[in-house]
Amino acid sequence: MRTLFHHPISPFARKIRLALAEKRLDFALALEKPWDRREEFLALNPAGEVPVLVEEDGAIIADQAAITEYLEDAYPSIPLLGRDVLTRAEVRRLVAWFDVKFTREVTDLLVGEKLIKRFSGQGTPHAQSIRAGHANIHYHLDYIGWLTERRTWLAGDAFSMADIAAATQLSCLDYLGDVPWDDHPDAKDYYARIKSRPTFRALLNDHLPGMPPPKHYTDLDF
Amino acid sequence: MRTLFHHPISPFARKIRLALAEKRLDFALALEKPWDRREEFLALNPAGEVPVLVEEDGAIIADQAAITEYLEDAYPSIPLLGRDVLTRAEVRRLVAWFDVKFTREVTDLLVGEKLIKRFSGQGTPHAQSIRAGHANIHYHLDYIGWLTERRTWLAGDAFSMADIAAATQLSCLDYLGDVPWDDHPDAKDYYARIKSRPTFRALLNDHLPGMPPPKHYTDLDF
Repeated sequence: MRTLFHHPISPFARKIRLALAEKRLDFALALEKPWDRREEFLALNPAGEVPVLVEEDGAIIADQAAITEYLEDAYPSIPLLGRDVLTRAEVRRLVAWFDVKFTREVTDLLVGEKLIKRFSGQGTPHAQSIRAGHANIHYHLDYIGWLTERRTWLAGDAFSMADIAAATQLSCLDYLGDVPWDDHPDAKDYYARIKSRPTFRALLNDHLPGMPPPKHYTDLDF
Repeated sequence: MRTLFHHPISPFARKIRLALAEKRLDFALALEKPWDRREEFLALNPAGEVPVLVEEDGAIIADQAAITEYLEDAYPSIPLLGRDVLTRAEVRRLVAWFDVKFTREVTDLLVGEKLIKRFSGQGTPHAQSIRAGHANIHYHLDYIGWLTERRTWLAGDAFSMADIAAATQLSCLDYLGDVPWDDHPDAKDYYARIKSRPTFRALLNDHLPGMPPPKHYTDLDF
């Protein structure tokens, strides 16, 4: 069986779970706490990060961006990056927006400070970082609203990896109750559309031990 | 003419310059200081970052990772990501290693603190970050040495984007004199091989105003 090493609060592991589900590829989940730095896991990925994909034949694909591209290379029948060169460039620009910019300006400052530090026992949350994360998220929600006023999905007419990258970051923050939905109705409508996809259900049902999400988290009509 | 908006001290702009040159694609350079946040430039890339590629027909490709994949999609005749699915996964894993991990653990802490803050006038260098960058680089140079003991190039037998990603990060740090080459002879030999590629020459000849590089920087026998 294909196996994905993941952690429920990793947006990048969620991204690959959702991509696998959208591509209708079966997989088993293996829980990995990256901060434990298990030797067997470091042998799979020297960077020590989830997700890591292990195919049934034993092929190891490490790094979330590499897995994203691998899935498109190896299983092209349901494309998630787009069908022509320029659409693919736009999808990838937006994937990078959420993978790099949103991660740095929001997720690392909120999920990173509040949860990863708690779980890994490394340091205490930095109040100034958390404040910055809360301030920065508005700009990104505005950008999602701006895009979805002009397009059906973030990168154009088709649901794509750009939507998967955005929604999985948002879902981790929403688990913390850290998305100010009421200030951003367009982004909220957009996220509600993704939330109602059957493929998204598994992510919403996955809970952190001893830390239930807020009530609206799994609610499709939030 | 194809145009690349770049800044000489951006490792990611260097990465795309080198990729274009390796693919034998002509291009003109347009200097962009991203910290000026020029409106015309933000219209090309709302993320406000170099590099941005503008094709002769006006197509705009923004984000360094998106440009990397676009070049391979649009100009496949000289492949830089590898020819089979698993090689491509390994190249991309290592590209991400340098784009994400090396950038976060080394380049942002040295080039970011020492140069970007100086040029952009935003803040003063943070001594603790600089110390961390100096400490972290050893581990990465060891990893380069470990890989090149086992492989001709970082990702295998063929020169690839993994080498381009690594060498362009190193070249920016070397401009600052911040690579402890003497402690890492294998990494040094590897970098010397890349430095001697004709395509690398243009990067080495590109100097920052009022800030010449150390003597060994352009020296092929350093």
